[in-house]
Amino acid sequence: MSNTRGKETSILLVAQVIFIVLFGLFVDYGERAGPASHGDHNSTSEVAGEELTFDQFYPMYQDVHVMMLIGFGFLMTFLKRHGFGSVSFNFLLTCYVIEWSTLVNGWFGMIGGSTNKIHLDVESLLHADFAAATVLISFGAILGVASPVQLIIMATIEVVVYNVSIYVGVEIFKAVDVGGSIFIHAFGAYFGLAVARMLYKKAQTEHTKEGSIYHSDIFAMIGTIFLWLYWPSFNAGPAVGNERHRAVINTVLSLSACTVVTFAISSVIDKKGKLNMVHIQNATLAGGVAMGASADLLTHPFGALLIGSSAAVVSTLGYQYLQPILQKRIKLHDTCGVHNLHGMPGILGAIVSAITISAANMDAYQASFSIFNWTVPQQAGYQIAAMAVALGIAIVSGALTGLLLKAPIWDNLTTEELYEDEVFWDCDEEPQLSQSEKLENGTS
Amino acid sequence: MSNTRGKETSILLVAQVIFIVLFGLFVDYGERAGPASHGDHNSTSEVAGEELTFDQFYPMYQDVHVMMLIGFGFLMTFLKRHGFGSVSFNFLLTCYVIEWSTLVNGWFGMIGGSTNKIHLDVESLLHADFAAATVLISFGAILGVASPVQLIIMATIEVVVYNVSIYVGVEIFKAVDVGGSIFIHAFGAYFGLAVARMLYKKAQTEHTKEGSIYHSDIFAMIGTIFLWLYWPSFNAGPAVGNERHRAVINTVLSLSACTVVTFAISSVIDKKGKLNMVHIQNATLAGGVAMGASADLLTHPFGALLIGSSAAVVSTLGYQYLQPILQKRIKLHDTCGVHNLHGMPGILGAIVSAITISAANMDAYQASFSIFNWTVPQQAGYQIAAMAVALGIAIVSGALTGLLLKAPIWDNLTTEELYEDEVFWDCDEEPQLSQSEKLENGTS
Amino acid sequence: MSNTRGKETSILLVAQVIFIVLFGLFVDYGERAGPASHGDHNSTSEVAGEELTFDQFYPMYQDVHVMMLIGFGFLMTFLKRHGFGSVSFNFLLTCYVIEWSTLVNGWFGMIGGSTNKIHLDVESLLHADFAAATVLISFGAILGVASPVQLIIMATIEVVVYNVSIYVGVEIFKAVDVGGSIFIHAFGAYFGLAVARMLYKKAQTEHTKEGSIYHSDIFAMIGTIFLWLYWPSFNAGPAVGNERHRAVINTVLSLSACTVVTFAISSVIDKKGKLNMVHIQNATLAGGVAMGASADLLTHPFGALLIGSSAAVVSTLGYQYLQPILQKRIKLHDTCGVHNLHGMPGILGAIVSAITISAANMDAYQASFSIFNWTVPQQAGYQIAAMAVALGIAIVSGALTGLLLKAPIWDNLTTEELYEDEVFWDCDEEPQLSQSEKLENGTS
Repeated sequence: MSNTRGKETSILLVAQVIFIVLFGLFVDYGERAGPASHGDHNSTSEVAGEELTFDQFYPMYQDVHVMMLIGFGFLMTFLKRHGFGSVSFNFLLTCYVIEWSTLVNGWFGMIGGSTNKIHLDVESLLHADFAAATVLISFGAILGVASPVQLIIMATIEVVVYNVSIYVGVEIFKAVDVGGSIFIHAFGAYFGLAVARMLYKKAQTEHTKEGSIYHSDIFAMIGTIFLWLYWPSFNAGPAVGNERHRAVINTVLSLSACTVVTFAISSVIDKKGKLNMVHIQNATLAGGVAMGASADLLTHPFGALLIGSSAAVVSTLGYQYLQPILQKRIKLHDTCGVHNLHGMPGILGAIVSAITISAANMDAYQASFSIFNWTVPQQAGYQIAAMAVALGIAIVSGALTGLLLKAPIWDNLTTEELYEDEVFWDCDEEPQLSQSEKLENGTS
Repeated sequence: MSNTRGKETSILLVAQVIFIVLFGLFVDYGERAGPASHGDHNSTSEVAGEELTFDQFYPMYQDVHVMMLIGFGFLMTFLKRHGFGSVSFNFLLTCYVIEWSTLVNGWFGMIGGSTNKIHLDVESLLHADFAAATVLISFGAILGVASPVQLIIMATIEVVVYNVSIYVGVEIFKAVDVGGSIFIHAFGAYFGLAVARMLYKKAQTEHTKEGSIYHSDIFAMIGTIFLWLYWPSFNAGPAVGNERHRAVINTVLSLSACTVVTFAISSVIDKKGKLNMVHIQNATLAGGVAMGASADLLTHPFGALLIGSSAAVVSTLGYQYLQPILQKRIKLHDTCGVHNLHGMPGILGAIVSAITISAANMDAYQASFSIFNWTVPQQAGYQIAAMAVALGIAIVSGALTGLLLKAPIWDNLTTEELYEDEVFWDCDEEPQLSQSEKLENGTS
Repeated sequence: MSNTRGKETSILLVAQVIFIVLFGLFVDYGERAGPASHGDHNSTSEVAGEELTFDQFYPMYQDVHVMMLIGFGFLMTFLKRHGFGSVSFNFLLTCYVIEWSTLVNGWFGMIGGSTNKIHLDVESLLHADFAAATVLISFGAILGVASPVQLIIMATIEVVVYNVSIYVGVEIFKAVDVGGSIFIHAFGAYFGLAVARMLYKKAQTEHTKEGSIYHSDIFAMIGTIFLWLYWPSFNAGPAVGNERHRAVINTVLSLSACTVVTFAISSVIDKKGKLNMVHIQNATLAGGVAMGASADLLTHPFGALLIGSSAAVVSTLGYQYLQPILQKRIKLHDTCGVHNLHGMPGILGAIVSAITISAANMDAYQASFSIFNWTVPQQAGYQIAAMAVALGIAIVSGALTGLLLKAPIWDNLTTEELYEDEVFWDCDEEPQLSQSEKLENGTS
């Protein structure tokens, strides 16, 4: 760790200089943010209803922005001695990815086009946040076990492969996934899990610092609740007109049902019959993940409740039973349980979208039928194909990234440095660990 | 308590299955969220100015949503050993009521109509949150003294009688109450107080765990501030045009004056002359409650300040003097003091609306006169009548509900289980209570 | 301190009565909130694109509102024993200033006009929040060293001189400063620093209570993140059309770069090579301050990154090196380091705006050229002139205010009362200070 200072500083400063240069070469304001038409920006939209104005995008953009920094950031503060790192590295990663993904998203958007400039508007800012969400999900799998340098390396690679996955899934397969069940949640989770598998250390299991204390669990609820509240904006943000309205309704219903069912299941599977904050903090959100790919489809309100209820079952059982098995059998340590919150519910979302689409027909969908890009059976098939490709890319590229991060040059953490803010932060006080715990941990 | 597991799980799972079936039978997307008109949803509004579009509703809806889960949820975390229960049962109740009130609100809306389907849009989601607010206010009166099963039973009943009260007050009496002083705040408070009176136990008085600690009071301020900030959206949400704009201005002014006056009074009535966090957390919000029924009326800015100032006086004195008296004399234990924050300020709001309306005339109100449904004196009278009916329904139905909840089959709490997360949550640590406090409490 | 009760109560009650009277005399609803035109408020805007409707203002207004109470309020809770005072006096000051600045802003707006009424709409509420921001920045400089009475006196004076500074800078010099780098951030900082210099006590240096503990630093991050998230609304709120859109983009980019560079620098300048929460909580925001005066100009995206990166350098180095020097050499104690977050980055913002304007020309700016009120070189010069006048007014009036506050009649604090909630709040518990610390402090 003696070189932490230099590496973290160097990599960030070099990256920032490169970003400034690349932004100078490639990035400018979009038409509605540029100098040309002073006056009412609403009037610049020629195809009313197909394109969203600044006023229609901005409130949803800000909701998603809150999800990134307050939502993900505080959700991760449940660890008793990693509150600084959780909320702050989440902050750093988001900012880094906003810059980097603006470039990468833009370059991928140029493919086949005639422009060589990236034109920014509030929609591109929203898509930068979606890239950030993907990286932050992966971060959750290795929370407390990676240095800032490792996280930045990971983010740099992940933003590129995330765009590859979207290029194949959306541009070629033309899958529909308005809320990112496939391309954000499942992709981010399995990429992160593959990294986590590579970074696995035996000492992670039953580490004394990998737990919450009473008030760190309350801090985490700030994250949970803001994610829950603004998830409708996440799922509806890219949609327009009635589709957008429907995506909001579906997501609110799915999340509500998911929360009720999570409370139902959490206590019945507990040894003492009590509720478990891990479930409440996480599984209540699975309804948002699973609804993502179908949010603008006609699942109908009862369908949205059914999807949310199913997601709660999958996610809660995942936390209680599957996660310990995966850790024991395949040495997969998943700090935040992203497999249960984003991985499996993301796959569920893809499957649900294929089923929902299979039931679609022109009579019921009317104008909304234009959501689809293929015949109904083809579209359903491509949903599954896109999911398979996304998972494949995520797992392979995540594993390779994990291998790269194992190279002992990225401020890698030792066993006793896991889940501990003191490693990277000026904070001596350790009020929550007893002396015996410290000793126990120091010698492991 | 041996059967907690089974009952909480069973009631929630059964309810969720019933909700899915009933949603399948009765609920579908509203016109603007349905498949018909792809394209700009704004253009579907035929009566511009009388009906709000998705874009006009959604930001205010999200503000109200934040009030429900962050506002109410964190305000209640002031208890030192009930943080999990406060924020989480608040979360569960909100989700449960969103589903249940969508049905009940919809059924009441069908009365006299020709449709037998409930059509969802963002406005119906807003009204589901209003029903949730009513239940959460009642929850505040019995915070820490009821099991989740009892809370769910209470919510199920309350949503129905809440709709009865609105049917009489709004459909028949045609009272105006844009921000719910009467039908949300006063109703929710007196319903909850009636329940609390029935559940009263002697041990609640001076219970060692019914108090705050330093950082739980700071968590509570997160709730207070978000309630304060988004209250203008609560009071203005259902209004349109200039009325909506005016409701925002009136509410901001009322809340600001209320906060200043609360700070003025809090220290002068304290024995040591110091400020009291209970007042700052709660009475600062009374200006929002009292402004509710008059928010879209021409109170004029000075009137809004006067209303907010009066609410601060009523609420602060209520916390300081009336609450201990009620506890001693009529055995009314009110954990969050909802009588002082929602009950009395709600009644004040109804009276203020009657006075404001009495001073109204066509010359001053111009087009805004269409707010009223009767002649001026009639409208003023119906405001008071609606309040009386709401209070009557609340107190009677609340008392009956409380009686029902006393039946020893709903995971009722024993004395030593009051205000304690350990009863329902996996959390052993008790860092904030000394050994002596534990002993003292355990034997009471 | 024996008279605290009386003074704080008296001053607030007298002020509130005066406000009610003055509102009755001077303030009424604006046209769009008044009774006249019932119906679609959007249609009342005659000059589409030049004037913003309620719907365009309200979401940004609410974002700024959150910045005032959650942002500033929680950012200041980093102090271990001043959490109540930080969040609550911030709350009181904001409410007091909303009322007082509505009057003062309105009176200044009348100069040269023909009306003698102040007409309220959501835009005037936004400007009341801007006045509040200025006062809250000054509050940061004297956090924990001033009584509520002193704070109210300070706010009363500052709102007036703030308006004088804007009158000279904007009405006469016609400087452009959409996000308030000059008139809000630099002004508020130097006013507060001048007050702080006057209130300086030797005992402030190395006071045992002037520090954070682990979880108070996490509370503070709630403030940081919400300020960061909603800063684009602060900088873009007063702008229209493409300028508003551009201000959002520029601010998001500037803040992102600022955060990355702050993380880069924080660890390299630390003795142990570790990250410092003070930097992460504060310097990450300097990019929003420095972008303010140029947010609606054509800095281009790379320019926004450059501005944010520069602000991070200035601010972080300020916290690390300049602040201790200023304290030692000129006895300037700055509790929150507002000089580093608002003062120097505000000056940087003014300089950046002059440079950006110097490079402007009609070809590039097209319709956006109408932002400027003079020829390009003149406009650049007036930017600097306005900054100089703002700083001059701030420092002189701040020093005089500080002198006034030193009069021993405003509940002035003794040395042992600094940074301590117990002075003004009902809270006996002191879990975070050891007995030896208390003794040490009590005798200083």
